[in-house]
Amino acid sequence: MKQTMITLSKCAPQRGAEVKEKPVPEIGEDDILVKVLATSICGTDVHIYQWDAWSQSRIKPPQTMGHEFAGRVVKVGTRVKQVSLGDIVTAETHIVCNECEFCRSGNAHICQHTSVLGVDRDGAFAEYIAIPATNAIKANPSTPVEYLSVLEPLGNAVHTVLAQDVVGKSIAVVGCGPIGIMAVDVAKAAGASLVIAVDLNDYRLALAEQIGADACINPKHTDIIETVKSLTQGLGVDVVCEMSGNPIAIKQALSYLKYGGHMAMLGVPSQEVSINIANDIVFKGITIYGVTGRKMYSTWHQSLALVQSNKLHLDKIVTHVLPFEKYEDGFALMESGNCGKVVLTFKEEE
Amino acid sequence: MKQTMITLSKCAPQRGAEVKEKPVPEIGEDDILVKVLATSICGTDVHIYQWDAWSQSRIKPPQTMGHEFAGRVVKVGTRVKQVSLGDIVTAETHIVCNECEFCRSGNAHICQHTSVLGVDRDGAFAEYIAIPATNAIKANPSTPVEYLSVLEPLGNAVHTVLAQDVVGKSIAVVGCGPIGIMAVDVAKAAGASLVIAVDLNDYRLALAEQIGADACINPKHTDIIETVKSLTQGLGVDVVCEMSGNPIAIKQALSYLKYGGHMAMLGVPSQEVSINIANDIVFKGITIYGVTGRKMYSTWHQSLALVQSNKLHLDKIVTHVLPFEKYEDGFALMESGNCGKVVLTFKEEE
Amino acid sequence: MKQTMITLSKCAPQRGAEVKEKPVPEIGEDDILVKVLATSICGTDVHIYQWDAWSQSRIKPPQTMGHEFAGRVVKVGTRVKQVSLGDIVTAETHIVCNECEFCRSGNAHICQHTSVLGVDRDGAFAEYIAIPATNAIKANPSTPVEYLSVLEPLGNAVHTVLAQDVVGKSIAVVGCGPIGIMAVDVAKAAGASLVIAVDLNDYRLALAEQIGADACINPKHTDIIETVKSLTQGLGVDVVCEMSGNPIAIKQALSYLKYGGHMAMLGVPSQEVSINIANDIVFKGITIYGVTGRKMYSTWHQSLALVQSNKLHLDKIVTHVLPFEKYEDGFALMESGNCGKVVLTFKEEE
Amino acid sequence: MKQTMITLSKCAPQRGAEVKEKPVPEIGEDDILVKVLATSICGTDVHIYQWDAWSQSRIKPPQTMGHEFAGRVVKVGTRVKQVSLGDIVTAETHIVCNECEFCRSGNAHICQHTSVLGVDRDGAFAEYIAIPATNAIKANPSTPVEYLSVLEPLGNAVHTVLAQDVVGKSIAVVGCGPIGIMAVDVAKAAGASLVIAVDLNDYRLALAEQIGADACINPKHTDIIETVKSLTQGLGVDVVCEMSGNPIAIKQALSYLKYGGHMAMLGVPSQEVSINIANDIVFKGITIYGVTGRKMYSTWHQSLALVQSNKLHLDKIVTHVLPFEKYEDGFALMESGNCGKVVLTFKEEE
Repeated sequence: MKQTMITLSKCAPQRGAEVKEKPVPEIGEDDILVKVLATSICGTDVHIYQWDAWSQSRIKPPQTMGHEFAGRVVKVGTRVKQVSLGDIVTAETHIVCNECEFCRSGNAHICQHTSVLGVDRDGAFAEYIAIPATNAIKANPSTPVEYLSVLEPLGNAVHTVLAQDVVGKSIAVVGCGPIGIMAVDVAKAAGASLVIAVDLNDYRLALAEQIGADACINPKHTDIIETVKSLTQGLGVDVVCEMSGNPIAIKQALSYLKYGGHMAMLGVPSQEVSINIANDIVFKGITIYGVTGRKMYSTWHQSLALVQSNKLHLDKIVTHVLPFEKYEDGFALMESGNCGKVVLTFKEEE
Repeated sequence: MKQTMITLSKCAPQRGAEVKEKPVPEIGEDDILVKVLATSICGTDVHIYQWDAWSQSRIKPPQTMGHEFAGRVVKVGTRVKQVSLGDIVTAETHIVCNECEFCRSGNAHICQHTSVLGVDRDGAFAEYIAIPATNAIKANPSTPVEYLSVLEPLGNAVHTVLAQDVVGKSIAVVGCGPIGIMAVDVAKAAGASLVIAVDLNDYRLALAEQIGADACINPKHTDIIETVKSLTQGLGVDVVCEMSGNPIAIKQALSYLKYGGHMAMLGVPSQEVSINIANDIVFKGITIYGVTGRKMYSTWHQSLALVQSNKLHLDKIVTHVLPFEKYEDGFALMESGNCGKVVLTFKEEE
Repeated sequence: MKQTMITLSKCAPQRGAEVKEKPVPEIGEDDILVKVLATSICGTDVHIYQWDAWSQSRIKPPQTMGHEFAGRVVKVGTRVKQVSLGDIVTAETHIVCNECEFCRSGNAHICQHTSVLGVDRDGAFAEYIAIPATNAIKANPSTPVEYLSVLEPLGNAVHTVLAQDVVGKSIAVVGCGPIGIMAVDVAKAAGASLVIAVDLNDYRLALAEQIGADACINPKHTDIIETVKSLTQGLGVDVVCEMSGNPIAIKQALSYLKYGGHMAMLGVPSQEVSINIANDIVFKGITIYGVTGRKMYSTWHQSLALVQSNKLHLDKIVTHVLPFEKYEDGFALMESGNCGKVVLTFKEEE
Repeated sequence: MKQTMITLSKCAPQRGAEVKEKPVPEIGEDDILVKVLATSICGTDVHIYQWDAWSQSRIKPPQTMGHEFAGRVVKVGTRVKQVSLGDIVTAETHIVCNECEFCRSGNAHICQHTSVLGVDRDGAFAEYIAIPATNAIKANPSTPVEYLSVLEPLGNAVHTVLAQDVVGKSIAVVGCGPIGIMAVDVAKAAGASLVIAVDLNDYRLALAEQIGADACINPKHTDIIETVKSLTQGLGVDVVCEMSGNPIAIKQALSYLKYGGHMAMLGVPSQEVSINIANDIVFKGITIYGVTGRKMYSTWHQSLALVQSNKLHLDKIVTHVLPFEKYEDGFALMESGNCGKVVLTFKEEE
């Protein structure tokens, strides 16, 4: 096996990323080494690329970026049992402590000792990545690795949509970036009777429509509150999946959410949001749930089952597959907003 | 309006039914009169037709039979507000007391003072039926009345399937009579990743396959337990929807239900069933739920939403539509088992 | 029976209330007439008494005030079955439509056609009150009517506390007015292992302690966030019951709520509150639930069962019982904040 | 430290147990060694002592018996982080695989690769026991070790009682052996409004009454079905906690369980039980849940919180504390049925 590998790394505290050769990582006795075959670009990667305020406070260069990936297991630690050489795997990107009250009661997704791949430790924009074997998710090798590489963000969508009952319900997905588009897809697959996609970008709304959204609304052009109400007999939607983090969108959504409805919030506003708690929460009798990561590992079981039973449209959600070297095109696409998921691929090792 | 109407009634304590002319019913101040346009034959109607032991103990002839129907509202009581002349409606068939602890806590489906249309009082195999307005379910008139007439049994399937989470789960539907077929359809629409249909009748299995069942098993020809396990990585199914009432089928199902799984039981065995509580319930950590009727009225909201958003295949489930006069053919079909839902239709009144 | 009765009414758009003689109300066929024996003063009554901004927009004088009460049934409408002459009853104060989607799916507490006793129609500060029989809650006559008169606000506390699992959990009750005090009591009765009472008024904290609060914190004197964390191994509380409506208290509570925790909000802020959605909701993975009224009628079943099995300390929560004529003393007590529930009593009719 | 230790072991395939000296166990890198201070006798230990059919098929002598215990950590493996030398611990007795679907989705209690202390591997009737550190539950050293030694069976009671909502509900605990007595205690602490204890042994019923059972029924002397119904307005209990495994008791309980009620089954019948599925499950709309072990580790958090906040009466539930040498007296007590928990104690090592 090779001694060194190509990576895309944040090397200096400034915009951009560099292709850098690094040693192939060593693995511990509980770890596996994965030959990365496909890795997709997350909004978080774009933030790190852009070197925004959050990145500056969190990232310690030099660091290999990236965390969404799929690949082949090429080395296993001495204590590893559940994963074997040659397995095709994708991975949960939260490395948790396994010892705290959260980890020990089915809530590892909010473990306060979490280390995130590509954020707090070296990531997946690399030919190889070392991860704890417990984080590996074995997949059916007949599923294309391009699709498996997006299972982690798909898990966010699954966690968000299935945080409440959706069968026969009306749902607004607010914010149709890649995870929002996935939420549209999951909501339809899970039996929602009316899925409304909301975004300011018409490219994304067109994609949502292709996936099966029953209505697509751009609040720049349309009175969103009135339109949602008219689609729902004046009552508003049963469920809002908030993926935008946009304060105006959040306030609008609270307004067109039905009495007794549910709002699952994944989007992260960059500032405080002023909320009319009396009218929009208390008197409405609604439920709000904050979504972090994926339930470990029940969300993964559901996500994998949905993908492997062909319930979803990852062929349409993965809009661009590029060879790893074209990463700059990938980031440009992501910054334009005119894309679904953008995947970078590596060749299998010889 | 006419003074008398055609009905199909149980007139004598013996097999069969008679076409009998009766006065069009009077309505009370809280009631509506519905011109029946379509009425479908339930297994219960067949039992009454056959005059089995249960019927002999429950039915008091002479009585108009039938309870599944859809039609047009032609008269409304003086206190009725939520239904209007001309509305197209279907109906919940349990007339409940509205006063007991069950009715007052969201459990009216198990009200112990329930009177059932076509069983405890005159039913829907008639040109007109009087029902309390609260039992009416207003439907979109663009949905064919043949389909609306089967919403009541569809509600049983919806109640059964959605008694547990099914997204990305494996499900066995045991017993593929009309409600079982509907359960297959609902399970697929609600995101189940693997739906296994089980029946002793190959016609019904073929129908289940048409609806979208991923596997169809006839225990007469196949080792059911082994087959289910092989379809589920040796673990068994996450969920069993028990619609057969067959003691052998129930015991088999408990055996191929996964540890921690859920069994929703709608089928009614005619005798006691011997259960291995230690191995099949306690050690397995499973949940069993008994399904009676439809949740009033949340099941109806979900059922109607599924139908009106075109998630289901009622066109395939309603296999036979006959004019009311051909009721004998309808009962013969039902007795053969080689059918889905059989619907009898009336003409609109002039 | 008497033709006229004493009432306490809002007669003019200004502070205060007047004792006014009015005709004893007529009842409709679905109603009952109750001889009020005890009626307690709600914070809402104080707002109406004070004629604050909300009252000015909602109340149409002249109107009999009051809505929390218990009494004896002295007349029943011709269609009433579940209540009888002589029954001791208390009552749900939301008169709902019984026809909308909310009423028909177990969510009548958020019916949008609700009329509230003493707010939208004549209330219970009167010798007699007419209510729909469905709103009556029959009680065991051995329970003192002073206690039965506070079952409606107790229902708010029960709805709030039991909106999540509390057995073996830590709970902060924020705002220890009468409903907050009741929430402390309910939380202890329902198995919470640590109940922390929070208020700015030391009288109320002393009352909370008497009821059984494990810790009482006045944020005026103590660093609330640090203190709660030190009581909870640094993790914060599992559950917050927000009864204060105070923006600062709400923000503090979001801060000391544990990751994955639950906040049930009953308090009504008079202005918008600025929330750090990213850190306090999304990343924390918490659930927020808005509490309106009481679940009809499951909350009532639980409340009555808790009271009639002597799980609560209504003897300590009802701090003042005054004859109706002393209503001015009652309002003065309520305005001082130095009280639990204040109950006004009438004599039984001769 | 000593090289050898005293144990109570099953050495031969016959009734009884022998005091046997064995080497103090070695520990692996993930394990801890605990100096046992208190160990209590489970019904399972009695079965092994008696060498019943189940024991003959499962136990491979020679083996150290016992699994309920508390003690002090005297050695920690090199990879252990969450437990320290000197900690007082009790322990989950299911050693699970941590790798299967059940373990990875919050259902480790039904892991199919479970090895049980004192059943499948050497147990706690010994001066020392080696266990995986993950199975240790750190406790407050101010809680007596006699009480900590019974937390494992208490966890069964907590899992059973809290499998459904019990606040303000009526509950029958069927079978008042030690875990049944604990269930009575937990139900009262968790807010049940009526707790009915059922057993054939009057000693145990007297103990249940002391703990706080509201009614105690011996079906030998009383018509159990009629009595339960008369205590519950003719409706039956909301919840049955089935701890007896007795077929007659189970059938009676299904009969006096309320429509829509919940039955949690922990008792293990030694033969199949004939169930009237139609009347007792389907038409009643009930839920049955099979209870295995303790949820890992949410049940432990709740159990420990209940004990450490003094909600329970372990002082009354632990009826006998004997020095380890008097184990024969302990087994005799257990066989008589006239006891709560029987605890054997060791001295601290010098």
